[in-house]
Amino acid sequence: MSHSRTVEIEGHIIDSGTMQRCFGAVMDLGGSFDVERFDVGKHENEESYCRMTVSAGDAETLQAILHELHQNGAVLEDPSDVDLVAAPADRVVPPNFYSTTNHPTEVLYDGEWIEVERIEMDCALVVEPGGGPDGEPRAYTKVLNAIEEGDLVATDQSGIRVRPPERPRSGGGAFGFMQGGVSSERPSESTIREVAEEVREVTEAGGNVMVVAGPAVIHSGAGDALADLVEAGYVDALSAGNGFATHDLERSLYGTSLGMDVETLEHPRKGHKHHIWTISEIIRAGGIEAAVDDGIVTEGVMYQCVENGVDTVLAGSIRDDGPLPDTITDAVEAQDAIRGQAHDADIVLMLATLLHSVAVGNCLPSTTKTVCVDINPATVTQLLDRGSAQAVGMVTDIGTFVPTLAEFVLGDDADGADRGADGADRDAEELT
Amino acid sequence: MSHSRTVEIEGHIIDSGTMQRCFGAVMDLGGSFDVERFDVGKHENEESYCRMTVSAGDAETLQAILHELHQNGAVLEDPSDVDLVAAPADRVVPPNFYSTTNHPTEVLYDGEWIEVERIEMDCALVVEPGGGPDGEPRAYTKVLNAIEEGDLVATDQSGIRVRPPERPRSGGGAFGFMQGGVSSERPSESTIREVAEEVREVTEAGGNVMVVAGPAVIHSGAGDALADLVEAGYVDALSAGNGFATHDLERSLYGTSLGMDVETLEHPRKGHKHHIWTISEIIRAGGIEAAVDDGIVTEGVMYQCVENGVDTVLAGSIRDDGPLPDTITDAVEAQDAIRGQAHDADIVLMLATLLHSVAVGNCLPSTTKTVCVDINPATVTQLLDRGSAQAVGMVTDIGTFVPTLAEFVLGDDADGADRGADGADRDAEELT
Amino acid sequence: MSHSRTVEIEGHIIDSGTMQRCFGAVMDLGGSFDVERFDVGKHENEESYCRMTVSAGDAETLQAILHELHQNGAVLEDPSDVDLVAAPADRVVPPNFYSTTNHPTEVLYDGEWIEVERIEMDCALVVEPGGGPDGEPRAYTKVLNAIEEGDLVATDQSGIRVRPPERPRSGGGAFGFMQGGVSSERPSESTIREVAEEVREVTEAGGNVMVVAGPAVIHSGAGDALADLVEAGYVDALSAGNGFATHDLERSLYGTSLGMDVETLEHPRKGHKHHIWTISEIIRAGGIEAAVDDGIVTEGVMYQCVENGVDTVLAGSIRDDGPLPDTITDAVEAQDAIRGQAHDADIVLMLATLLHSVAVGNCLPSTTKTVCVDINPATVTQLLDRGSAQAVGMVTDIGTFVPTLAEFVLGDDADGADRGADGADRDAEELT
Amino acid sequence: MSHSRTVEIEGHIIDSGTMQRCFGAVMDLGGSFDVERFDVGKHENEESYCRMTVSAGDAETLQAILHELHQNGAVLEDPSDVDLVAAPADRVVPPNFYSTTNHPTEVLYDGEWIEVERIEMDCALVVEPGGGPDGEPRAYTKVLNAIEEGDLVATDQSGIRVRPPERPRSGGGAFGFMQGGVSSERPSESTIREVAEEVREVTEAGGNVMVVAGPAVIHSGAGDALADLVEAGYVDALSAGNGFATHDLERSLYGTSLGMDVETLEHPRKGHKHHIWTISEIIRAGGIEAAVDDGIVTEGVMYQCVENGVDTVLAGSIRDDGPLPDTITDAVEAQDAIRGQAHDADIVLMLATLLHSVAVGNCLPSTTKTVCVDINPATVTQLLDRGSAQAVGMVTDIGTFVPTLAEFVLGDDADGADRGADGADRDAEELT
Repeated sequence: MSHSRTVEIEGHIIDSGTMQRCFGAVMDLGGSFDVERFDVGKHENEESYCRMTVSAGDAETLQAILHELHQNGAVLEDPSDVDLVAAPADRVVPPNFYSTTNHPTEVLYDGEWIEVERIEMDCALVVEPGGGPDGEPRAYTKVLNAIEEGDLVATDQSGIRVRPPERPRSGGGAFGFMQGGVSSERPSESTIREVAEEVREVTEAGGNVMVVAGPAVIHSGAGDALADLVEAGYVDALSAGNGFATHDLERSLYGTSLGMDVETLEHPRKGHKHHIWTISEIIRAGGIEAAVDDGIVTEGVMYQCVENGVDTVLAGSIRDDGPLPDTITDAVEAQDAIRGQAHDADIVLMLATLLHSVAVGNCLPSTTKTVCVDINPATVTQLLDRGSAQAVGMVTDIGTFVPTLAEFVLGDDADGADRGADGADRDAEELT
Repeated sequence: MSHSRTVEIEGHIIDSGTMQRCFGAVMDLGGSFDVERFDVGKHENEESYCRMTVSAGDAETLQAILHELHQNGAVLEDPSDVDLVAAPADRVVPPNFYSTTNHPTEVLYDGEWIEVERIEMDCALVVEPGGGPDGEPRAYTKVLNAIEEGDLVATDQSGIRVRPPERPRSGGGAFGFMQGGVSSERPSESTIREVAEEVREVTEAGGNVMVVAGPAVIHSGAGDALADLVEAGYVDALSAGNGFATHDLERSLYGTSLGMDVETLEHPRKGHKHHIWTISEIIRAGGIEAAVDDGIVTEGVMYQCVENGVDTVLAGSIRDDGPLPDTITDAVEAQDAIRGQAHDADIVLMLATLLHSVAVGNCLPSTTKTVCVDINPATVTQLLDRGSAQAVGMVTDIGTFVPTLAEFVLGDDADGADRGADGADRDAEELT
Repeated sequence: MSHSRTVEIEGHIIDSGTMQRCFGAVMDLGGSFDVERFDVGKHENEESYCRMTVSAGDAETLQAILHELHQNGAVLEDPSDVDLVAAPADRVVPPNFYSTTNHPTEVLYDGEWIEVERIEMDCALVVEPGGGPDGEPRAYTKVLNAIEEGDLVATDQSGIRVRPPERPRSGGGAFGFMQGGVSSERPSESTIREVAEEVREVTEAGGNVMVVAGPAVIHSGAGDALADLVEAGYVDALSAGNGFATHDLERSLYGTSLGMDVETLEHPRKGHKHHIWTISEIIRAGGIEAAVDDGIVTEGVMYQCVENGVDTVLAGSIRDDGPLPDTITDAVEAQDAIRGQAHDADIVLMLATLLHSVAVGNCLPSTTKTVCVDINPATVTQLLDRGSAQAVGMVTDIGTFVPTLAEFVLGDDADGADRGADGADRDAEELT
Repeated sequence: MSHSRTVEIEGHIIDSGTMQRCFGAVMDLGGSFDVERFDVGKHENEESYCRMTVSAGDAETLQAILHELHQNGAVLEDPSDVDLVAAPADRVVPPNFYSTTNHPTEVLYDGEWIEVERIEMDCALVVEPGGGPDGEPRAYTKVLNAIEEGDLVATDQSGIRVRPPERPRSGGGAFGFMQGGVSSERPSESTIREVAEEVREVTEAGGNVMVVAGPAVIHSGAGDALADLVEAGYVDALSAGNGFATHDLERSLYGTSLGMDVETLEHPRKGHKHHIWTISEIIRAGGIEAAVDDGIVTEGVMYQCVENGVDTVLAGSIRDDGPLPDTITDAVEAQDAIRGQAHDADIVLMLATLLHSVAVGNCLPSTTKTVCVDINPATVTQLLDRGSAQAVGMVTDIGTFVPTLAEFVLGDDADGADRGADGADRDAEELT
């Protein structure tokens, strides 16, 4: 094992699984390690420290191992400044550029560790030497297509350290720590109650609740409950698609969703012209806000978003009918809008949409709490797998989840009673 | 096409899809048909009549076609008496014995059409010449392993006619007519409301509501709601397994399900000894009823079933721990117990269990209403596919379905308010 | 029932289920019917004819019923010319505009029935009076956002007739007729063999095979098999997304997919920088074709598509990394490109992508054969539900489906042996 | 924190995740720890050692924490002999009896650590003082219903230590270490190839390959491939149900499965009397072996099992038709038969059956390799979750999995060629 480097790792690295992953990576990739020092935290509030030399038979393997260790928070013993190379052209990064994780990250520049702003995975990392307000250096992420010629882009991984999230010092209730799997063997209503408490706490603390919603929210009949949450001020941002908005607007215009009366279940037929007619009406009005202003749209989620000034992004996709004039049809432009929402969010509720949830998840740092709800276990697994440190995954029916959530969130607002007190009439006007 | 026979079909055979299936069967199997007469019902309440000659190139193909037509209600033009052969030994049926469908069926015996009792699919059909109370002939189904030497078993299909269910004359609301597919694009709460109304109507009419429940009902936290329904008198029969009962009893004994506190979500760990300890406690007590009587079990579904005299069958399976003393470990014996429940049921709610639902479904005539609820769409599809004419399939979360159903069913009983009025405390005692 | 109209329906309307749906619609919607004449086809090759008067208590209900009947092929007894209204502005259709089905459609204009071109669902129907090559009128579909001021748009449904697909006169093998449900109880390899035969037949007849592929095709290891099919000339059009192309190109550039070596299964780790590096390399090269020309990309599906001149559309989405320069980021522009592919296709294979499959399915007439393959039964159900008359739905693993399909399609080409003879080396060069 | 105990943990406890789980358990349950000594293994082959004092505010919490630590391999610093209490009656265990894990376990008896035989989870642990061949003490598991009056049953957890499986020192290829989640983002054929290699290695080493098979194996058309594996000697035990056997026998008797010809896909109809006729024929013959001997059954999996003396268990369930005379209808009796198979197995292939796989999994020690294959991700997750240390979970189509596996396993036997060389004709006779 002729190639070796010494790395340091510190923090709650045993109970957060960091050392397990680091040792595992070395073994899996065919290297070996020699622990030089390991100070184990004696109590739950004491951090640990490990210094070890990692060896491999060839430079490439060593590099692969170090890449893994790096992503788990290890730093080289004597780190040198980050290695910056100017981008040769717009949208073109230098070879071997550093691709970011979604964990908090710092770069060593001019001997100082600088926090990287707008952290997000799979981006380039750009350092702007005099970019700060007082001429100090700044570092931030940039997606590939935003790179401009001359941007100083980090390459390799020297001089960069990431801080993967650590296990909370006590149990996280419904919010599991980095759990990739989704157990369906959990009590549904109790879990929803915990999510509701989290939503209330974030809102009461002045935080930002972002909702990512798929069309199933509407045609499963959960639109009213979501509209109530918006009206009551528990939703700060809505990220959805053309389909979600159209189904919701169809309900306001025609009382149906995909042609079915959501109350009486009647006329669940193909050839539901209401859907395309809705789009046509909104185009005629000049957009959703105009349609609300004109009194054409008088209820529903979109109506409440307009009335309550919720930051709304409708991102287009190739399966859209229409689309509505409000829908951003360019994917890159839509991503930028979503990115803005995601960076502001304190908690994100991903409701029955894989496409939009992945788009949002791509922009989130690992420190943002997320709630992923879908009827398909594979969707929930995929979303949890993308890496929030504190996440709730529920395989459940969005058509019962949202009403139950709304009752738990809104219940106490009205009159201090718990669930159900105002569930029947949902007299939301009293609540605001 | 040298082989041919003439058949007759009558009823609402166009709008029920009967003719579509009959014509399709002839074409798919390579035969041809010659419609001799077709009187189409002029109004929705007028029946139609079709007489046609079916031909095929060989006798075997013709036989296959006639088999299909028979199962769709066609009868040979000049039917002869049913062809009976005595069973040569216990559990041994004659070759070419007639295997029943789950549709209402009659046999022609001594020139008279006799209704077949206890209709159930995949059984033998036995005629007992003097078996009636006044010495008249009787006909009934028998499962293979109940056949006794000398039983007169129907062979072939001559002299037998089935009546597949017909499309209701008006829309069935949530209860679709013979719909094999499951659309998740339905409003969840509205659908549950329709199921609740059906349950109430059956109960108020003195009918029999049968619940088939899997363990997920308990560990999803829906046990209380089901217990409320039992206590309030809306459950006449419970068909479940050892796991369901054990999880429910564990809640009463230890406040956990699979080791997790279902209220606080704490201790969701492996090695949940409460589960096996629960079984041990019930064995020690001598069974569930004894444990209730001794004050060991004081709440939950099983408790309410004992207290309210619900007809309960716990059928064993090879994945059982223990099992509980109440569990019927022999599959054939358990099937007989389930069969008794199934034949009495007017509506069956299949809640998050494939195994027990299929077992029950196997015993049901096609005329019994069924509600199939599972988080897995393939399970719901499979259950609907087994053939109730009026069925609701919901891909939803049992942990929110049952509480919502309980609120809708129990709501009005208490005080005329709708959902939620008593949801919070579920003061079920007032309700009964 | 003071409101009534008389309609006519003809064709194989019993065995295709048309009459079942028509009678059902009348009853479900609360109307009644009076059959004036019903000539039933006496043989499987003789069509039937029905004339009936439909009544309802109010004009709105009658309209809803007629809408349903219309979509099932019924025409008013004395049809008048199509009702055309000029579009008041670009992208704005007249109120009550006719929204198309995906079935073959004709309009009555100046007393002549004209076939509607480019049939596709949820579009407006435009008549161009002198639009034909010889000054004759033309009719075609237009999506809402393509409508130009002054376009003569059909409104209401008078003067329009649709021809829903009819049941094939003999069994369709794996290709079921309008079956919404998906049975997993079918033999997988036999079904794939039937699909393979269809692909071969279409190709041999000079037809167009369109493949819609999701990224799972690549990371499930099926990329080589699909590349073989492309190389051997069995793929005329590829419709995919940025993810599919990137995963495929990553394999060519780095031998990995999402960072995992697809042969050895090694390094299945997070933080797979190869993915984003691949995009960067293709941007640097100036696009996929340039990267192939430069010898940077030397194998894989995209390579074969470039080399074999396959009509390729990469449609962007909001979850894309990068994106690649070849990806069409605007959804409307991408839809137009997909529309062109879809209208040319004779058979469409939808492989493990819901998003792109729905996008393609939206543009297909109901007469195009489709094969929908996904591991998620809900996805397959949703795709089949969109309405191809002849469709195969398979709930299977794309990672074994494509290699098996390739063996069945390519097998006989080489040497007449069946499956497996050339499976090992897949010496595709000999095959072309 | 007035209550405390000191425990020791040793082994590869960092990279196996043991310490992460132990520290986590203390924190989650509200206790605290004080690490007195922690010797970290300096190299991948050096074990670690930890001694720590665990404290809690009350005795009950401390007990809960110690229970968790115990299950992760911790032992009290000064362990005393196991605490044995005689069972008061048949099937009745003493209160607070020790419930086993599925990990290797030892008990301290008379100052000596004795290995517990027949390790299996959720059992009682019985010590037989002079039960060994030379009068030495023995310890073994017993399921609750096998307990006899007077059995010395372990209570509490003192004097018992378990050894959870440790992470292999190098990567396990497809066999992941204790991975609860199932990624579908793995190359299917490569994974199957690894499974095939494992099956070959076990067989070549004289080991025992156990197959657990559901009916989907047959009706997905994979029966021939499984029969080939049996014939070629790669299956030592088959654990299945009445449905599997009946579908397989139906193929031999009638060429159909559930009434469908698995080659031509013809006649996929309801009312498939072949199924029930098959059962009847086997009953008439007196059982499967008799039917093989009489030449009634001439091919298929059951045929090959009889011909090759495979240890076969058919366990009954309440959804069975018939059942076949060979089916063990009593669940407890069937479990005992399965238990015998499971304890002998070196690798278990669980093929498309949840019920039988759970039954087998319940009896397996955590050291047995398992392969779980199902189309439903929730099934695979549930099976992996039960605790084999080395497991492969695949969400795939059993109808393509088994044929592909058979080709990979059998390929080289015949002539050294790889996949496909003998795939076409599967001339299995040459292979044996």
